Amino acid sequence: MIHGGDIITYKDKFNGSIIDYSSNINPLGPPKGLRKVFESSYNDLTVYPDIKYRELKENISAYLGCKEDEVIVGNGAVEIINNISLIFNRTVVFTPCFYEYMERPRVLGKEVIKIPMKENFSLDLETLEGVLRNGDLLILGNPNNPTGLRIPKKELLEISYIVNKAKGFLLLDEAFFEFCPRDYDSIQLFNDLKNISVIRAATKFFALPGIRLGYGFASRNFVNEYSKIESPWSVNAFANAAARHIFMDKAYIEDSKTSTKKERDFILNELSNIKWLKAFYSDTNFILIKLLKYNEDTIFNSFIRSGILVRKASTFEGLDQTYIRIAVKDSVSNKRLIKTFKEFE
Amino acid sequence: MIHGGDIITYKDKFNGSIIDYSSNINPLGPPKGLRKVFESSYNDLTVYPDIKYRELKENISAYLGCKEDEVIVGNGAVEIINNISLIFNRTVVFTPCFYEYMERPRVLGKEVIKIPMKENFSLDLETLEGVLRNGDLLILGNPNNPTGLRIPKKELLEISYIVNKAKGFLLLDEAFFEFCPRDYDSIQLFNDLKNISVIRAATKFFALPGIRLGYGFASRNFVNEYSKIESPWSVNAFANAAARHIFMDKAYIEDSKTSTKKERDFILNELSNIKWLKAFYSDTNFILIKLLKYNEDTIFNSFIRSGILVRKASTFEGLDQTYIRIAVKDSVSNKRLIKTFKEFE
Repeated sequence: MIHGGDIITYKDKFNGSIIDYSSNINPLGPPKGLRKVFESSYNDLTVYPDIKYRELKENISAYLGCKEDEVIVGNGAVEIINNISLIFNRTVVFTPCFYEYMERPRVLGKEVIKIPMKENFSLDLETLEGVLRNGDLLILGNPNNPTGLRIPKKELLEISYIVNKAKGFLLLDEAFFEFCPRDYDSIQLFNDLKNISVIRAATKFFALPGIRLGYGFASRNFVNEYSKIESPWSVNAFANAAARHIFMDKAYIEDSKTSTKKERDFILNELSNIKWLKAFYSDTNFILIKLLKYNEDTIFNSFIRSGILVRKASTFEGLDQTYIRIAVKDSVSNKRLIKTFKEFE
Repeated sequence: MIHGGDIITYKDKFNGSIIDYSSNINPLGPPKGLRKVFESSYNDLTVYPDIKYRELKENISAYLGCKEDEVIVGNGAVEIINNISLIFNRTVVFTPCFYEYMERPRVLGKEVIKIPMKENFSLDLETLEGVLRNGDLLILGNPNNPTGLRIPKKELLEISYIVNKAKGFLLLDEAFFEFCPRDYDSIQLFNDLKNISVIRAATKFFALPGIRLGYGFASRNFVNEYSKIESPWSVNAFANAAARHIFMDKAYIEDSKTSTKKERDFILNELSNIKWLKAFYSDTNFILIKLLKYNEDTIFNSFIRSGILVRKASTFEGLDQTYIRIAVKDSVSNKRLIKTFKEFE
C-alpha cells in the first residue's frame, strides 16, 4: 500500500464502519450547495470539456489571486506533477515526501535525486545547493507530506534564491495550503518569478478527492509551455462545475480552517501525554508519529480492530517501520482516535 | 483548432444555437437514469477513487466480455493512449488519424513513424511490414477517425499477423465501436493474444465526453505492466458511478445503434446528390467529405452562419484543405444540415 485512503482493502477487518485516518480529507465534507451545482451542470457531461478551460481558469484565478493565463489545471494535482516532471530532465526531492514526486518522473524515464531530510525533518539547503544543476526540477511539499511541516517564509526565499542561481525550477506542492497558518501565500510571494509553480487542489481542503481537480499558478510563459504537453480534456465536467461554487463559500473556508486548528491542537495535546510515541508538530491536517516501542504493523493491526485505519509510514522513503501518520478529523472521531491510542497499552 | 468540439470559440458567429457537427457524440444523449445514479453517488466524491478500480473493472469486464484483470481504465481514452505510448519506444500510425496517436508519443519523447494511407484510405500493409520493428507500437483507429472506416476482419487478422511476426504491439482504438456494423468484436477475436490492446470509451457512444471514462482490454500481463506506470486515481468518482449504469441499458444501446445507421444512411444518400462534394462511405457516426470546388474555410465560414459547426479536416495530417468532417446527429438536425448543404451553392 503505497498510498493512503485504500479503505476498501481493509473493510472486512472490523465489524462496523472504519474511520479512515490514513487519508487527509477535510472532515466537514464538501461545501454545501455543491450537489445543486452538479444537478444544474448535468448537461455539461454531454459536451467535451472546454479544451482551453476558459471558465475554469477564470474561477481559479479569482481564488488564487493571479491572472487567468497564469493558471494550470489537471486531473488532480498528480497529473500536474506528472506533466511538469516531463518538462525537466532531472527531478530533485527531499525524502520523506509524497511518493508521486519521485514516481511520476521515474515512470517518465527521468533521473530522480533524493536528498534525505535532517533528523528533525528540516531541509538540508547546503546539500541542495551542491546538488542542484541548470534545468533541474525541485519538488517540495509545502506543507510536506508526511511530515506536516510548512516551509518557513525565510527558508523558502532562500530556496528560491538557490533555485534561481542554479537556473532550476521550483514546484511547490501546496495541496494542504488552506489547512495551514496564514503566514504567507507563495503565489503572492513569487508571482513575478518565471521559474516557479505552486500547485493546489480541491482534493484535501474541499474534501473532493473523487472529483479530480488540481490547479496551480505559474508564469504565463510556463503555462504556455505546459499547454503544449498536457493531454486534452483532462479536467472533467463536474470538476469544472465544482469550481463555480467551492471557492466562493467563504464561511466554509473559515470554518474548515478554524476547526482543523482546534482539532489538531486537541490531538497533539492528547498525544503528548502518551509515553510510547512522539507526535511531531504539524502545520496542517495530518500528524506524523514516531513509535517508540512498537512498529507500524502492531499499531495498524491493533487499531484496525477498533475501526481506526492509520497510515503505515514506512512506505515513505526515508522512514522506517517505527512511524505512522494520522489525519485530523472531526471532534467525535478524534475522541475515538485518542481513546484508541490511550487504550492500546 | 486541432480537435473538434470547441464550440465555445465560435458561439458568437451565429445568432442562435449552433449545432456542433464537428464533434461525434451520440445525439440521443446519455442513457436515461444516469442523473439518479449521480445523485445517489454524490458521497463517492468525498473519498479517493479505489486505486485498484475493483468495482469499475467488474462493470467494464461484464460489458466487454473479458476478465476483470484484463481491463485497463483511464481518464478518457486519451490517457490510455498516452500511457501505452510511454511503454514503447516507437509508435507507428497510418495518416490521416486521430491527432493524439502521434501527439502523445511525441510529447513523451518517442519516435513516431507515419505511413500515409492509400488514396482510398485503405492501409498499406506491405509498407507496414517493412517498417514495423521489434518493440514497436502500432496504433490504429477502428473505425478510423476521420475516415470513418472499420478495418475488415480479414485485414485485421493480417495486421495482427504482421505485428506478431515483428514482435510489435497493436493498440486498436475503438472509441466508436458501438456505432459500427456488428461484423466482429476485436476483444473476442484477440482475447488470447498478449500483444494487443483494444480501447473504448464512454465518450462517444454513451454521449459522455465530460465524464472522462476510457477503458479497454489487454492481457493480464500487459494490464499488470500498465498498472506500474499509470497515475493513481485518474478515473473520477462520477465516471466510476456512470459505469454502474450505462452498460446495463440495453434498450438505449440498441436504439443508438439503429438510429445511427438510419441517419448515416440518410445523410450519405442525400449527400450523394450534391455535385460539389464527395462523401466517403462510413461505418460509424461521422462522415468525411471531399470538397470538389471549395476549400474547408469557405464551407466552415458559410455553414457557421447557418448555425452548423463542421470540422475542418486539414488539421488531420495527410488531408489538405479540401476536406471536412461532419457528425451524424438526430433526424431534425440532420435535415437542417442537409438543407444547409443544398442551399450552399
